[in-house]
Amino acid sequence: MPTGAEAPAGGVAEYLATRRGEVDRALERLLPPGDAWPSILHRAIRHSVFAGGKRLRPILCLAAAEVLGASSEDVLEPACGLEMIHTYSLIHDDLPALDNDDLRRGVPTCHVVFGEATAILAGDALLTHGLGVFAAYPKGEKHAAAKIRVLETVVEAIGTRGMIGGQMADIEAEQETRPTAELLTRIHENKTGRLMRASLLCGAILAGGDDEKLAAIDRYGTRIGLAFQIKDDLLDVESDAATLGKASNKDAAAGKATFPVVWGVERSRALLSENIAAAVAEAQALPRGGGVLPDLARFIGARRS
Amino acid sequence: MPTGAEAPAGGVAEYLATRRGEVDRALERLLPPGDAWPSILHRAIRHSVFAGGKRLRPILCLAAAEVLGASSEDVLEPACGLEMIHTYSLIHDDLPALDNDDLRRGVPTCHVVFGEATAILAGDALLTHGLGVFAAYPKGEKHAAAKIRVLETVVEAIGTRGMIGGQMADIEAEQETRPTAELLTRIHENKTGRLMRASLLCGAILAGGDDEKLAAIDRYGTRIGLAFQIKDDLLDVESDAATLGKASNKDAAAGKATFPVVWGVERSRALLSENIAAAVAEAQALPRGGGVLPDLARFIGARRS
Repeated sequence: MPTGAEAPAGGVAEYLATRRGEVDRALERLLPPGDAWPSILHRAIRHSVFAGGKRLRPILCLAAAEVLGASSEDVLEPACGLEMIHTYSLIHDDLPALDNDDLRRGVPTCHVVFGEATAILAGDALLTHGLGVFAAYPKGEKHAAAKIRVLETVVEAIGTRGMIGGQMADIEAEQETRPTAELLTRIHENKTGRLMRASLLCGAILAGGDDEKLAAIDRYGTRIGLAFQIKDDLLDVESDAATLGKASNKDAAAGKATFPVVWGVERSRALLSENIAAAVAEAQALPRGGGVLPDLARFIGARRS
Repeated sequence: MPTGAEAPAGGVAEYLATRRGEVDRALERLLPPGDAWPSILHRAIRHSVFAGGKRLRPILCLAAAEVLGASSEDVLEPACGLEMIHTYSLIHDDLPALDNDDLRRGVPTCHVVFGEATAILAGDALLTHGLGVFAAYPKGEKHAAAKIRVLETVVEAIGTRGMIGGQMADIEAEQETRPTAELLTRIHENKTGRLMRASLLCGAILAGGDDEKLAAIDRYGTRIGLAFQIKDDLLDVESDAATLGKASNKDAAAGKATFPVVWGVERSRALLSENIAAAVAEAQALPRGGGVLPDLARFIGARRS
């Protein structure tokens, strides 16, 4: 398997497709089969995990590991743990009591197909097994200390002072008539950005990166996390449901704190460009010119869904 | 601090009260304060964690560690992780989409006080932070391998082939007109028993127990897990809400698979006694005569709530 640290010959689209295939095959191996007891639960898990995600978080993990010289094979399972955790957050976020979304990644959401009870348990299971993957992989006692560090990094990123905190604040902000820019940034840095940053850090930790490299990777992650959310908000107002795979114009209708609502569309576009440029610069200062990381940042700014 | 491995001078009630106090103080330290951002979430978490639980799982963890010669101080934080995970399972189980319970441990359930969205996120947070505690404690790189083993043990116990699987099967069994004894045992071994067994194993692993000791501890755990559930079902038909701290006669009304429904009350009582006796025998064969473990088994059979 190529290390992939060099800029991909076929461009970022080919890189993403190749890595996505690897991640999908590993997820297939890691998740219990759909007919294993209790089968409704395993079918619900598989429904949401294999609904066609971009696998951006695992790919960020793999790409960061590659830049620091690790083979993607050593990091593939932990990368899948990140996708399980991301999918858990989507399943719970889509529940009627939270965002009440019927459509996600172009298919009906978990609770629409399997009912709320099963969706809650499927989310719980993906969080549990996702964190379990970090304990289980890479195999071997020599990796124990790195695995503990990965676990602490991810738990901090997805806990009440990270992703879950961002989800909670997002719900609370719906009651505000006009959320401030500060609140908006805080919500999204936590709700979306933290898991992306943690994904990059996982790859860097497992590749044995030193503190300086980890800090640089984290600065890159902060920039692309913010860029990802700004782009998401812009897509919500500029795109349609067929392209997005989920309802469009939903955020504004729900009174959600979004970048276009707070800053306007033009200023949001400028913020997006600034963050992508800063991410590219951070990545290029890393070994191997940041490998595929600069192209991944540009992809995040240019994506259409 | 006494090692507590000897049978407690003041009896099991005093032992339980002392350990419960230690666990409560440690939980107080480990959980973010109720005014930390986002405060509604931290208040919801504290509402459920400090609603007056018996702390049975952490105490089983501490007791198993003591029997194998560890000081309870080394195991206190991981023991609290078990209580966080137990509380997460209660919060989600009580949700309207699952068991729809308004009362738990004598106080209104999390979603009744804070709303469903917050309750879902509070459960997610307790699962996340609970597993995080196993990664963080005991501190020091020399514990890394034991911590990984604890994490793998707990994740296996609470995943789809353990606790979550039992919850799912329990919900599915409500549609059955007459659940079989086999299904009943399978549900409860997973829904209730697995986390109790894992609690004991955590203590034993952190105390450096060998495979033989771990197997003996696990046989004890299997017995008390089953005894606990039989007793729970008997209390549901024999007690009232004021004593239980939650609705009584609810299981039968909901068509739940319970031991009295499947076996009748008399046979259930006999099964309870058999399992307690077997647990006591297993414990007494351990070092230090099993310390407090025989008395804990008897307590589980005799408790009134």
